[in-house]
Amino acid sequence: MDTHQTMHQQWIYRQHPSGLVGPEHYELVQQPLSTELSAGEVLVKTSFISVDPYMRINQSLKPTYNAEPHPLDIVQSAGAVGEVIASQSTGFAVGDWVEGMLGWQTHARVHGGVLRKLDPLQAPVSTALGVLGMPGRTAWFGLTESGRPHAGEVVVVSGAAGAVGSLVAQFARHHGCKVLGIAGGPSKCAWLTETLNLDWALDYKEFADAETLSRAIKSRTGGVDVYFDNVGGWITDAIFPIINRRARMVICGSISQYSGGLDVPEMGPRFLHHMLYQRATIQGMLARDYVHRMDEMVRIVGPMVKSGDILFEETIVHGFEELPATLRSLFTGDHRGKLLVRV
Amino acid sequence: MDTHQTMHQQWIYRQHPSGLVGPEHYELVQQPLSTELSAGEVLVKTSFISVDPYMRINQSLKPTYNAEPHPLDIVQSAGAVGEVIASQSTGFAVGDWVEGMLGWQTHARVHGGVLRKLDPLQAPVSTALGVLGMPGRTAWFGLTESGRPHAGEVVVVSGAAGAVGSLVAQFARHHGCKVLGIAGGPSKCAWLTETLNLDWALDYKEFADAETLSRAIKSRTGGVDVYFDNVGGWITDAIFPIINRRARMVICGSISQYSGGLDVPEMGPRFLHHMLYQRATIQGMLARDYVHRMDEMVRIVGPMVKSGDILFEETIVHGFEELPATLRSLFTGDHRGKLLVRV
Repeated sequence: MDTHQTMHQQWIYRQHPSGLVGPEHYELVQQPLSTELSAGEVLVKTSFISVDPYMRINQSLKPTYNAEPHPLDIVQSAGAVGEVIASQSTGFAVGDWVEGMLGWQTHARVHGGVLRKLDPLQAPVSTALGVLGMPGRTAWFGLTESGRPHAGEVVVVSGAAGAVGSLVAQFARHHGCKVLGIAGGPSKCAWLTETLNLDWALDYKEFADAETLSRAIKSRTGGVDVYFDNVGGWITDAIFPIINRRARMVICGSISQYSGGLDVPEMGPRFLHHMLYQRATIQGMLARDYVHRMDEMVRIVGPMVKSGDILFEETIVHGFEELPATLRSLFTGDHRGKLLVRV
Repeated sequence: MDTHQTMHQQWIYRQHPSGLVGPEHYELVQQPLSTELSAGEVLVKTSFISVDPYMRINQSLKPTYNAEPHPLDIVQSAGAVGEVIASQSTGFAVGDWVEGMLGWQTHARVHGGVLRKLDPLQAPVSTALGVLGMPGRTAWFGLTESGRPHAGEVVVVSGAAGAVGSLVAQFARHHGCKVLGIAGGPSKCAWLTETLNLDWALDYKEFADAETLSRAIKSRTGGVDVYFDNVGGWITDAIFPIINRRARMVICGSISQYSGGLDVPEMGPRFLHHMLYQRATIQGMLARDYVHRMDEMVRIVGPMVKSGDILFEETIVHGFEELPATLRSLFTGDHRGKLLVRV
């Protein structure tokens, strides 16, 4: 028997954050890895672990999309990609690459039924957490089903350099739309226009308030047909006065509100009267409503990724121990595209 | 020749209101009535003149549903019902009852093409400004096309004792929905439950804030599937936290915001994250989008009115000179159903 035991490391969610979430809300624990499996189970060694804005929603004390917040004192729930290292499931063999809600841990013992098998030849396995995973599904169905863009329309995307936003912006370009991306900082904006070929990019940090941002968007675009919102707050305030007739506003995220604003709402200008003027629609959407349509998304988007028509960017932080700090940096940081931790 | 000349009286819109609109923004002018008509024209003596909340929207200095506000120094635009007293149109004869955008004036010289001929035997002619007119059309299509109610669902209506709200509430009952009406004062609430047979009515004046109103609605209904909004502001704030999965919020009006809030927005809690949680929809609607579908509405609602299945209430103020004060009372007053001025 090997005396050098493999350790099973886990990040335990210990404490509700009231503002920003970070390392102080987690504890790293470890124990010798158990390789015991029941029939149908699989042991996965995780390679890429996801941090996503929705995790902070799920830590709100008020009901959100779940009636109850993420429980304390268990492993932080998260999507992850890994390799099967032991299997009692007929569907999975050692060496298979899989994706699933494996959590913030180095190893996961799960039933095979919760795993999605990946084809490493189709695309890098990390894309199962990005462009060919939940963020890609969110972007594709959020834009096509809720945004319903048409060629020639103006699509504005907030959080346009993020995991979802950068895909929405590119999908909208492929629909023949004119696309304006809003992001933080000149380097993100340069990436949006120069690499992703957006028509316009605006650095929100250059604007003092919603009114000046609103005027800048209006002067470039003439008005907004589809607004794909990842951020909420004052950036979204800027859009309401400049929506076009029958505009569609897709509420995909409100990241500016997550670090406290879900528990104690921030105040902002009332703007629902603009919906009336323009007979516009606001539609909230969640990726989970489209899980059963992954095959549609992958069928269409997979070839776009392979051909290079859709670019995906990954910001990969190395080290399992970096997970809580990386989650925090989602809300403060400067990453581009999908933020991941490499175990 | 008759020496007793008929006078043509008109209320001229003279000054933009910044807050409440009222008599100080209008001037009553009169001149001898001219009976001159060109080919195709009709002279109408008005009998019932409408005051509607949308008039105040149109006085906002910011772009609303029209790019430009109502011009100063012309007759206040308004729907009215009257009798044809002279005609050069083959479509209209002296004695015909008609409805159209005739304005705040005792007589109107208009092209026959802008008039809708009324059948006084079908329903009282005043209903052409109410249940069988613009408010009825708003209520019917707002509920059916934007609200999309289903039997067993919970429909909450704000401004439920008003011209539109009282119809929406009854239409929703006919759809098999459970209906909660929100209105101001105990007598309106008693009317809603006792006469209109709503399941519940709440007097918003009994609640200190959105949170307590929200709890009261939640405890009665269990949650909201369709919210039909005529008022906006803090009453609407109360709804967001208690919407059900895939709720539809219809923005038909925001009367609480009209007397200033359209120019300088009021502040309120940010709530768009609730759209995300529940994958809900907010849809703005305007009666003008359904003008071409009046025949559908009258075909369905007309018989309901005739049979007494749908009750319509009119609050009729007597005297042409009362028009500006009556418009003001829309925003402050205690009327029930459709508010009209009898010339």
